[in-house]
Amino acid sequence: MSETVTDVVVTPIAFPDPPLLKASDGHQPWALRTIVELRIGSELVGLGETYGDAPHLELVRRAAEAVIGVDPFDLADLYRRIAAVVGGSNVPDLHGLTGGSTAEKTLLRVYSPFEVAGLDLQGQLIGRPLWALLGGRARESVPFSAYLFYKWAGHPDGDADEWGEALDPAGIVAQARRMIDRYGFKSIKLKGGVFEPDEEIAAIRALRAEFPGYPLRLDPNAAWTVDTSIKVAHETDGLLEYLEDPTPTIEGMAAVAREAPMPLATNMCVISFADVKPGFEQRAVGVVLSDHHYWGGLRPSQRLAGICQAGEVGLSMHSNSHLGISLAAMTHLGAATPNLTYAADTHTPWQLGVDVLEHPLPIVDGAVIPPDGPGLGVTLDRDALARMHEDYQRCGIRERDDVGYMKQCRPGYEMRRPRW
Amino acid sequence: MSETVTDVVVTPIAFPDPPLLKASDGHQPWALRTIVELRIGSELVGLGETYGDAPHLELVRRAAEAVIGVDPFDLADLYRRIAAVVGGSNVPDLHGLTGGSTAEKTLLRVYSPFEVAGLDLQGQLIGRPLWALLGGRARESVPFSAYLFYKWAGHPDGDADEWGEALDPAGIVAQARRMIDRYGFKSIKLKGGVFEPDEEIAAIRALRAEFPGYPLRLDPNAAWTVDTSIKVAHETDGLLEYLEDPTPTIEGMAAVAREAPMPLATNMCVISFADVKPGFEQRAVGVVLSDHHYWGGLRPSQRLAGICQAGEVGLSMHSNSHLGISLAAMTHLGAATPNLTYAADTHTPWQLGVDVLEHPLPIVDGAVIPPDGPGLGVTLDRDALARMHEDYQRCGIRERDDVGYMKQCRPGYEMRRPRW
Repeated sequence: MSETVTDVVVTPIAFPDPPLLKASDGHQPWALRTIVELRIGSELVGLGETYGDAPHLELVRRAAEAVIGVDPFDLADLYRRIAAVVGGSNVPDLHGLTGGSTAEKTLLRVYSPFEVAGLDLQGQLIGRPLWALLGGRARESVPFSAYLFYKWAGHPDGDADEWGEALDPAGIVAQARRMIDRYGFKSIKLKGGVFEPDEEIAAIRALRAEFPGYPLRLDPNAAWTVDTSIKVAHETDGLLEYLEDPTPTIEGMAAVAREAPMPLATNMCVISFADVKPGFEQRAVGVVLSDHHYWGGLRPSQRLAGICQAGEVGLSMHSNSHLGISLAAMTHLGAATPNLTYAADTHTPWQLGVDVLEHPLPIVDGAVIPPDGPGLGVTLDRDALARMHEDYQRCGIRERDDVGYMKQCRPGYEMRRPRW
Repeated sequence: MSETVTDVVVTPIAFPDPPLLKASDGHQPWALRTIVELRIGSELVGLGETYGDAPHLELVRRAAEAVIGVDPFDLADLYRRIAAVVGGSNVPDLHGLTGGSTAEKTLLRVYSPFEVAGLDLQGQLIGRPLWALLGGRARESVPFSAYLFYKWAGHPDGDADEWGEALDPAGIVAQARRMIDRYGFKSIKLKGGVFEPDEEIAAIRALRAEFPGYPLRLDPNAAWTVDTSIKVAHETDGLLEYLEDPTPTIEGMAAVAREAPMPLATNMCVISFADVKPGFEQRAVGVVLSDHHYWGGLRPSQRLAGICQAGEVGLSMHSNSHLGISLAAMTHLGAATPNLTYAADTHTPWQLGVDVLEHPLPIVDGAVIPPDGPGLGVTLDRDALARMHEDYQRCGIRERDDVGYMKQCRPGYEMRRPRW
């Protein structure tokens, strides 16, 4: 049997996304993803999952052509091949991360699904779970947090979804109760930046009252000024395990961090290796939320974990709307990362049961156990993939544009960040 | 076939060490090492190589008992088992590194040969070279440097060795010529700290005259004060690619680094993960010389490589007297480490042809090609191992004591650091 990649399949898909609100915009009705399959012959398929926006998809397709023939065990060669066709491209991502777009970030974002798929193939070729290729199992299961969102009951032109409305503290507490009952999460994160800070502080207080002992986090996605951030930090002293991205830029975060009683976390100001030195030197962050989708896959995410450990900075994981391939990848990575110091984020509850996998990994007691099977240990549901590709064809969305969607839903809406 | 470790063999050995001089002491006639074999059944043997000093050997033996039954793919479990029996022990190493001894350093030093042997087993179990398990081949071959030493012709009570005397610039140039002719090295490092700085600067100038275009390095092993270091740094401006450990401590190095025109390298002040933050924040070093023997093996050394890359600090590799297992490990690691920014050190030429391997890896054109075979790709020469174990039994040395040896050879000698 050949042990080099013989075929690569890139499939853009769409799946329904509830009207989750964040930093003053809202999720569009469809989330886009791209599924990457690295194949060896007709039997072996390595899986990766990435963003679905058109400019990114175009680069992923270009990369796909370049990796035919690669030995999946030579990830350095995989990287070189992709760098050769993508290197130099500078495509901003469309998911609300800040920091200027660079060629390095673009390349790592394109490389990521191929790296994950390559590792999945490695595991399948040797009959070992992926955590074994990432240094062993530092923990039996990987804890995730309940990721709460303010939301409308449904999209303006659609029915209410199963989660219903959450636009005030009572709605948020009810959402948390339902999510915790269903998945057993043991920590809670509220996506903020939607309402005035006082309103969101009230929601945090309501969560604290209802869930004593649960670590709480608040993430306004840089919706606040430095002064507002410092004020909120003082008012939530003792309530939050961390405050996430209250304000934009490393400099802004550093100014808040000097005054805030709790650590600041980020997936908006330290989001590439080039940001580490300035971010750490300025003590802008106490926790990095890593994300293998833009840090270049699982091994580079491990590199980031080592950097955080040496810098005495905590580590958790960030999440965008994603499906089960990414959840499996995050789980193996988390299982093999000793210094994953906080429960990770996941959008899994917001998928509304939709997935591209035959058997999505269950979240039980707020944690996911990495599967024992080879590689990622998950299998594509090809019928679901075909359906979701049809949805992609039909939905008409080619680039994520939450701000545009918000303007359409709320005439007169304007994006401002910081807003308060 | 079982795929867990069924047996562990720990063999202390000794091999002849030429009278190499350094920071005002000299190598004893025998170098001690310990060979660790992790076995699965009667066929598979994973190899590791570490220090041979009695207190360390005792901990290695304790660790050996604890790892029977481990899955070599679960390095996290391997680490936990060794931490359980070694954790908390604080045994200073005897190889002239500075910085206080800590339990963390002790544990990583004991863990290292097991980690390398575990990775060797992984590679053998899956039929892949070790670089494939370390992220792929970033380079075809790994460059090493010509590592020059001032030396006596022979030990006081013995004959001259094949390398003969080198006690002045002409002797050093002749040694370099012979070593480069034999191995093809393309860069040169002089171990200094033996004579007054002016004498060693003269040797560097002589090397520059004889080998124009060869990067040069000087390593006085912290024999100098801050003031002397700054003076030498200015006098060697334009001559050295880096100046290695001119003076002790992170603070001392930082004071030199502020004035020195070239980067400072270290294997004496940033030698554990806990040193990284203070060392980098104080900008004490421009290059870290990693060493898998005390950084905890190959994957932790990769972690260090990632930390250096993010910190915009260069990376090379340090060497103590070692044999071919360690050379193979360094070669696979170097092949898989994109940011190995300088040729690595090796004592291989000083082994005088002695090794524990059936087919030691050749150094050709100053570089070593990682073998294609599974794992490390090297095989123990059991006759040689037995002979070297007998030498260990006979030689009477149980702990490295270069200072004691120097006192014996040169009555009235006193260890002082810094000396100039």
